[in-house]
Amino acid sequence: MSKRFSQSAFLRPQFLRTRPPPRRSFTVGANRPNKSRWANGAAVAVISLSGLLFAMASQKPVKFDARSLAELDERTKREKGIDENSPMRLRMEQFIREQQKAIVFELEKLDGKSFREDTWSREKGGGGVSCVLQEGNVFEKAGVNISVVYGTLPKPAIAKMRVNHKNLAEADELDFYALGLSMVLHPHNPMAPTVHLNYRYFETMLPDGTPQAWWFGGGSDLTPSYLFDEDAVHFHKTLKEACDKHNKDYYPKFKKWCDEYFCNTHRGESRGIGGIFFDDLDETVADADNTFAFIQDCLKSFLPSYLPIMQKRKDMPFTAKEKEWQQVRRGRYVEFNLVHDRGTAFGLNVPGSRVESILMSLPLTASWRYMYEPEPRSREQRLVEVLKNPKEWV
Amino acid sequence: MSKRFSQSAFLRPQFLRTRPPPRRSFTVGANRPNKSRWANGAAVAVISLSGLLFAMASQKPVKFDARSLAELDERTKREKGIDENSPMRLRMEQFIREQQKAIVFELEKLDGKSFREDTWSREKGGGGVSCVLQEGNVFEKAGVNISVVYGTLPKPAIAKMRVNHKNLAEADELDFYALGLSMVLHPHNPMAPTVHLNYRYFETMLPDGTPQAWWFGGGSDLTPSYLFDEDAVHFHKTLKEACDKHNKDYYPKFKKWCDEYFCNTHRGESRGIGGIFFDDLDETVADADNTFAFIQDCLKSFLPSYLPIMQKRKDMPFTAKEKEWQQVRRGRYVEFNLVHDRGTAFGLNVPGSRVESILMSLPLTASWRYMYEPEPRSREQRLVEVLKNPKEWV
Repeated sequence: MSKRFSQSAFLRPQFLRTRPPPRRSFTVGANRPNKSRWANGAAVAVISLSGLLFAMASQKPVKFDARSLAELDERTKREKGIDENSPMRLRMEQFIREQQKAIVFELEKLDGKSFREDTWSREKGGGGVSCVLQEGNVFEKAGVNISVVYGTLPKPAIAKMRVNHKNLAEADELDFYALGLSMVLHPHNPMAPTVHLNYRYFETMLPDGTPQAWWFGGGSDLTPSYLFDEDAVHFHKTLKEACDKHNKDYYPKFKKWCDEYFCNTHRGESRGIGGIFFDDLDETVADADNTFAFIQDCLKSFLPSYLPIMQKRKDMPFTAKEKEWQQVRRGRYVEFNLVHDRGTAFGLNVPGSRVESILMSLPLTASWRYMYEPEPRSREQRLVEVLKNPKEWV
Repeated sequence: MSKRFSQSAFLRPQFLRTRPPPRRSFTVGANRPNKSRWANGAAVAVISLSGLLFAMASQKPVKFDARSLAELDERTKREKGIDENSPMRLRMEQFIREQQKAIVFELEKLDGKSFREDTWSREKGGGGVSCVLQEGNVFEKAGVNISVVYGTLPKPAIAKMRVNHKNLAEADELDFYALGLSMVLHPHNPMAPTVHLNYRYFETMLPDGTPQAWWFGGGSDLTPSYLFDEDAVHFHKTLKEACDKHNKDYYPKFKKWCDEYFCNTHRGESRGIGGIFFDDLDETVADADNTFAFIQDCLKSFLPSYLPIMQKRKDMPFTAKEKEWQQVRRGRYVEFNLVHDRGTAFGLNVPGSRVESILMSLPLTASWRYMYEPEPRSREQRLVEVLKNPKEWV
């Protein structure tokens, strides 16, 4: 049996950030000792979501025909509205739709130009909204996407998942629901950092639509071309505050996870100066309401974590040489996303995926210069040193 | 046991072009029915070389300590020189070294600027010469690399390989030798096409240095941003003539193989307008001398296949919009090399590989524009149609 890690095609590119096992070394739960979830290094993230999606994609075609459930949810939203007693999937969906709007609104205010909005739907339930601003005043390229998927999980996939999600029902098939918000912003100014964010939710459901098993994942991370320590401190501090409100262990764990995942291992350097990254937040960690509250705080912390940095950096003077360095760093960003990012990889591999939404994460422009080395003791060199040896910022 | 396809790190990026199985669906010989080699679609290339290299890399570390053989070869070269009675590996090595010089010489004449030459050696035998011209008059980036590797193949790797190479000795370990010439040229002018070429040779040897099993692989292919039919015809015709001198079946088979391999499957379009691509040319196809003669004719056909096109295109006028389209096409080139090319993928995955030589294949500049669609009935649209439906050019 193949040990490929797989992901549903229609999930957005950063939907499936997972902890960094060696690239293309595909892991499923069945082969793992049953250790403490967070203590188990690379295995953890791969097990939960990818176990699900792996099985879906590699066993036999998933029937994405959970239309009835999608219709049920549509009716619920229409007739009853959404409140704190609604199913978590509908609360999370409402929340990320609001957040997409709020973020796009603030970014448009910052940039002065408008996002293009593409709404698309999946034939068998779910869909998405891709908001992209290209060649803005501040942003070279900015994408804020949400996607919602309804599908059905076949028996072999369920069996695999149960290894690491004991609470998963034993059934011939299970409906599932997946949604997330994904964002990548590439500013023009080389002094202004690129940022990435993704928050997501998964749920399996009984035939009557009762939530069965669930988990959250997400994070955000910063990728400067020029490192301003105060920006790194501000970004991490804002994330740490959001984490600390919920669990003092979250920030150090998720910061480390982020450094490990967003790494161009072939160059021995991180993509950027990190942030937080996590997966598998389920009832073994905290209850759904508390975890949703945590996710809300994280996502709401995005604008305060990033906008003050942009206000300071977006209009700074820069030289042609500094722009060139940014372009080289953009090349490294492309390398990570196309070579290492498992969500992107799987998304591109599945026929019929919305490639333009998946690759919205790539910068408008990038460059590869042979043997391009920063000057010793330069600012560029300092960045590279930090990328090779991730720092604790708070 | 993992079914990952693997490649030795020190092989250059295009060293390992293989026929297109579904991406990241890793195949080894043991799982394949024993069909006619060429009739067996995706399996063929993966089996031969990658079977070897897969096993090397995924079983246990290969001892790249065939220093004695490397030293033996060095002594042979020094004391006896190389003639038609020398081991094939030394004849092939001499040939690609000569060809690298000849190609660099002609490209420098065309460009007016000089290549940078980096010679590097592997601690445990072998090494390479990377010639790169960046920001030339004609070429934005041009790389012509050779690499030579001596290594030792452990027993499990040999067992795997024997499934598809029955002539391979049953032994506890086997020394092997691998070398190749790899080239990617990206011109400035959007009317002038990018070209890629790779020819390579593998051999296993008995402890006394006697050649044991061997095979050749290679090909070259053209990637225009603007399609001139006469250029495509000229390029393919030159390759066909080189093939036809040896076997009338070669061109149609290798042309098809090329179209299949160099495909951005996630976009349903070829990287370029093809050429030829093959692997596994061993004694079941033709004897070593005849195959070497074929390889020589192919490689020697490169300059006549490409230079006349460049002479016509390098100084053609073009608009900013046409340059933009070239940049988008360059983005697609990057996508193929980083997402689909298995040699690049594995090379980057192995610690200590020379990343700058592997990624020399990437263009100096590339662009990703969201939802960038050519105008209906435009020249850009015509290119895309041909990339979606590869044509027979001769």
